[in-house]
Formats: sequence, structure tokens, C-alpha cells
Amino acid sequence: MADEQVPVHYEDLALLETQFDEVDREILAKQYVLSAPLYAKRQEIVSKIDNFWPLVFEQSPPDVDRYITPNDANIFTKLKSLDVKRFEIPMGPEKIDGEAGDPRSIAIRFEFEDNEYFSNTVLEKKFWYRRSNDGWSGLVSEPVKIDWKEKDPTEGLLDAAHAVFEERKKAGDMKKKGFAAHKKLLKLIESNNVDNTSFFAWFGYVSATRYVSAEESAQANKEYKERQDKRSKGERVESPEPEEEDMADMSGEDEVHPEGDELAQVIAEDVWPNAIKYFNMSEMDFEDMSDEDDDNAPIDLRALVGKGKPKTKPSNDADEPPKKKQKK
Amino acid sequence: MADEQVPVHYEDLALLETQFDEVDREILAKQYVLSAPLYAKRQEIVSKIDNFWPLVFEQSPPDVDRYITPNDANIFTKLKSLDVKRFEIPMGPEKIDGEAGDPRSIAIRFEFEDNEYFSNTVLEKKFWYRRSNDGWSGLVSEPVKIDWKEKDPTEGLLDAAHAVFEERKKAGDMKKKGFAAHKKLLKLIESNNVDNTSFFAWFGYVSATRYVSAEESAQANKEYKERQDKRSKGERVESPEPEEEDMADMSGEDEVHPEGDELAQVIAEDVWPNAIKYFNMSEMDFEDMSDEDDDNAPIDLRALVGKGKPKTKPSNDADEPPKKKQKK
Repeated sequence: MADEQVPVHYEDLALLETQFDEVDREILAKQYVLSAPLYAKRQEIVSKIDNFWPLVFEQSPPDVDRYITPNDANIFTKLKSLDVKRFEIPMGPEKIDGEAGDPRSIAIRFEFEDNEYFSNTVLEKKFWYRRSNDGWSGLVSEPVKIDWKEKDPTEGLLDAAHAVFEERKKAGDMKKKGFAAHKKLLKLIESNNVDNTSFFAWFGYVSATRYVSAEESAQANKEYKERQDKRSKGERVESPEPEEEDMADMSGEDEVHPEGDELAQVIAEDVWPNAIKYFNMSEMDFEDMSDEDDDNAPIDLRALVGKGKPKTKPSNDADEPPKKKQKK
Repeated sequence: MADEQVPVHYEDLALLETQFDEVDREILAKQYVLSAPLYAKRQEIVSKIDNFWPLVFEQSPPDVDRYITPNDANIFTKLKSLDVKRFEIPMGPEKIDGEAGDPRSIAIRFEFEDNEYFSNTVLEKKFWYRRSNDGWSGLVSEPVKIDWKEKDPTEGLLDAAHAVFEERKKAGDMKKKGFAAHKKLLKLIESNNVDNTSFFAWFGYVSATRYVSAEESAQANKEYKERQDKRSKGERVESPEPEEEDMADMSGEDEVHPEGDELAQVIAEDVWPNAIKYFNMSEMDFEDMSDEDDDNAPIDLRALVGKGKPKTKPSNDADEPPKKKQKK
């Protein structure tokens, strides 16, 4: 590729894209810091509203809803709270320090009441935004162990993903393959009907390509920054590209939830910030019984939680009359 | 509604929503100011790339693409540049002043080469984010006159919208109805097949409800702020609600492009910031000839502009290898 005649403006565009990304990251961090007290206040208010979070998930957008099986819907009726943190953004008096971490890293924390599926009361999944030494960047995570009671809605998928990750960690080789647990995982993934995969398999997500450690990412970010600095001075610099064999490692064939990073982002960037909107939609749905042409056919959590007609109506009057076609 | 028992937490939630909105506006303004120099740089670079904007629109998301008829696609091959400004955000040394205007107001400016449809070289449409005295808020605009040559792709719709707006302005009554031009507009809208409406009818957009003047909006914002201040002190305050007869005025039945505000937002918040991404998609499409299962079936602008195989390949190597499933 180095020998091909690439017009300079394509390089300029690529450099510019990374500068736009920097602004996006700065803005994301700024928004997080400004919104934090409002989210804290919201938690306080919604904790007093029965079934707030179950009703939000009932109205969640298709990109979440399609992962919620009937079993999962049952479990979500026991959802006590949701919390989303961008844990690499430093809060408090020290304020934002660009080197501190990546604002795109996300922690999603679910708190459940007693339920018949698992004994955990808290399930927290962390996603780190990392860069690999072969040029990829994105969200990686580690499988979260769930202590199933009798029924495992993921039908062994989550346990298998967890076992593979643990064995790789123990071996100090995150690309290790071919061992018994790995074969079992591949078999389960292959026999699995993706459309019926439980939401809870998402807790097993590792990476859309391959796992990247904090150390690898720190080194790759350092080199990336050096290349960017040279580029902004007009130097032409090659970027790393994955070797043939690495490409195979990056196929994500042993990933239990290949779109797990996107699901995390939808929860963090849509469900979480728009929770009040989704909750209000559920109230409206309930009042508007002519809802049958809804082709999403969401599972009726309200029926599941045994909730009757709400005693009171939401006051939609704080200068926000329902919009005809709200989007966001 | 005042007499109904509304639990306090619903009022708290509504107040909180308006506080989130404030943060969103602040962030929007901040992002605009930080990105402005990068967008200027981008304009400079892409002006050197043949057919940059036509190719961006060819790859535009469905919410834009569905408004582009074959006629429109022909016109878009002559698109020289696009520019999006948030013109109520003050730039320069005076920096942001919260009272100055609304960061959600947008100006979208198209520059065209000579073409067989109209003699204008620039079409600019401004959208003001305004609040009405009956509680609505959103984007309003004024019809833009296009000087058609022989063929009018909107088949009279745009001219009719423009005529109605001018007559109302002259009469000093933006709700005026029943005059000849208004009847003609209603008839055209009724007989119009929405799916075949030209993109250029969008230049006639006025409001999803009704036109709101700058004066009305200033007054409504002032009263809104007073109510919010009282609410944040714990007072319970009624919001204005439209009268029965105003509701009829707010139906938007004489609107040539009922989703014109959303189309403006998609252009400003997706096409504009992601233009390089859409352009790169067009390059990839061109290389990947197995593209036939694309169910969007976009009109092939590249064929229309008579562009052959690009002489050079975009360098995707500035540390951004093509992502498998890039979103947003």
C-alpha cells in the first residue's frame, strides 16, 4: 500500500477524522460530568416509582428488545435498578485529565430482586475501550459469572464463555484455542439459534475481534499518539496492519454475543439517557388501548408484573406536550 | 388536570427532563464551537475531491434517501457543497452566551453548479428553534423560493407553499386560511403522492404544527423560564395548553413536508458530521461489486456523474481499519 499513489487529501481526511474523534471524546466526558448530578437525582426519584426499570426495558428500542426472550422478560420484571457509569472519566475536584482513561469505557450495573433464575443481586458488566497492537480499537469486556439456580436461560453459553476466558487467563494466552472448553464453546455457538439467544448471554461478551489487555492497549495508544503527532506535522506514517494469522484470531468466531459492544452502547447511549421517555411511553401505551398494530409486539411486562391501571396519570405538563413524532 | 392527584415524583421527573435538556443544549453549543475549525478544514479538503457531496448523498441514510426521487438524484449530481451552521451560537471572542439564541437552530446551505432545473446557485434553508405561547416547541422555517427553469420536480408544491406564506405575512396573520392560494396548496397536498414528493418540496417546510414568530417565541421563553424557576423552588405551576381552536391550527394540514424538521435534523446530525464516512462507503461500494443485495437500492449517482473507477484508493490506514459493523 505504501507504494500506491494515494492522493494527499485522503490522508488529510483520515487525520481529520481522528481530530473529530478527539472532540467527540472531550464532549462525551464534559457531558458526563455535567449530567452526573442529574442522573443521581433521577435515581432518587425513580426508586420511588414501582416497576420503573422493568417498564423502561419493556419499551426499549428494537436493538435491545430483540435480545429479550420470554424467559428474559420474566427476569426483567425483577430489575430493581440500572446504572451506567463511564468509569474512566475522573470525577470530582481533579476534573478531566485527557490521559486518565477513555470516556468511551462503560460500566453497566443491574440490580435484581430475588428471582428464580439466579442468586446474584447485582450483575455488573464493564467495557473497556482499548486499542490493539494490530490497529483495531473498540470495546472489550470480561465474562461475568452468573450463579444460576435451576434454569439457565443462556443454555450453557454464558458458563462456557466464562470457562474459556478463565482458562486463557490462567494460561497467560488470550488467543489460546483447541482446548476442551473452547471446543465446547464453539459447538454451543454453532448449534445456537441466534434469534433465541438470551439477553444474559451478553454477560459473556469479550470482544468483536479478540481480547485486548490493558497493557497492550496502553502501548498501542502510545504508538498511535506518536504516529498522529508525526502526521499532523505532515509526515507520512504507516499504520500497523494485522498479519494474516492475526486476522483469523480477530474473526470473533468464539464470541457468544458478536454484537455485545453495540448492545452495550445502545443501553448506555439510548436506554439510559432516555429512560424517562421510555417510561412515559409505557404509561401512554397503557392508556391507548388501540395499540394492537404495534408490529414490535413487545412482551407485556406490565401484565407480567401484575400492574393494574395506574392510579395516577403522569403529568405531561412541564412544558413538554407529547410530541407527535418524537425521535432522538 | 389540575385537580387530579399527580404524585410529586412525576413533577420531579418532568422538571429533571428540562434540566437534562439544558445540559444537552450547553453540550451542543460546546461541541459546535470545538468542531468549527475542523469542519472548516474539511470543507477545504473535500473541495478538492470530485463529486464528494453527490457521493455522500448517494450513501445517505434511509431517512434522507427516501425523499430523493430520480429527478432529485439528477440535481444532486450538481451539488457543489453543503454547509450546516448553528447560527444562533455566537462564535469568536465573545464566546457562548446562554441568552443569545438556541443551539438547536440550524441553517443548511446547498451550493449547486449550473443545472437544468433551477437558476439559483445557492439554496439556504434556516430552521429556528422556537417556543409557542400554547406550549409547543420545535423547528420552524420559512419557504425558500427556487427559480425553476422548465421542470419543477415538486410539481408546484414549493411555489404554492411560498405563495401561502407570503400572503399570510402580508396580512400579518400567520394562521390565515381559506384564500385562493391556501385552497390551492391544500388541493396540491391532498393530490400529492407522498412517496413521490421531491426532496425540494422540503424547502417549503414551515412547521410541524404552525409558524411561530421570533416575538412570540421570545415571550413564551420568558414565561417558560419563570415557570421553571418557580418549579425548581418546589412551587406547582400550570403550563399553558392549546385551546380547542388552536389545536386545529396546529394540525399541520397545510404543511408540504410534515417531516421537514426531522429531515433537517438528519442532515445536520448525521449526513453532515458523518460525511467522510458516507463518502468512504461509496468508495467501498464501488470496489465491492457484490453489492446487489442492498435492499435500499439507492440511485447510482456515481453512474449519473459518469465517474469511472477511482484512480486511487482511499487510504484507510490512519489507524481506522474499516469496522465490520460501524454504526453512527
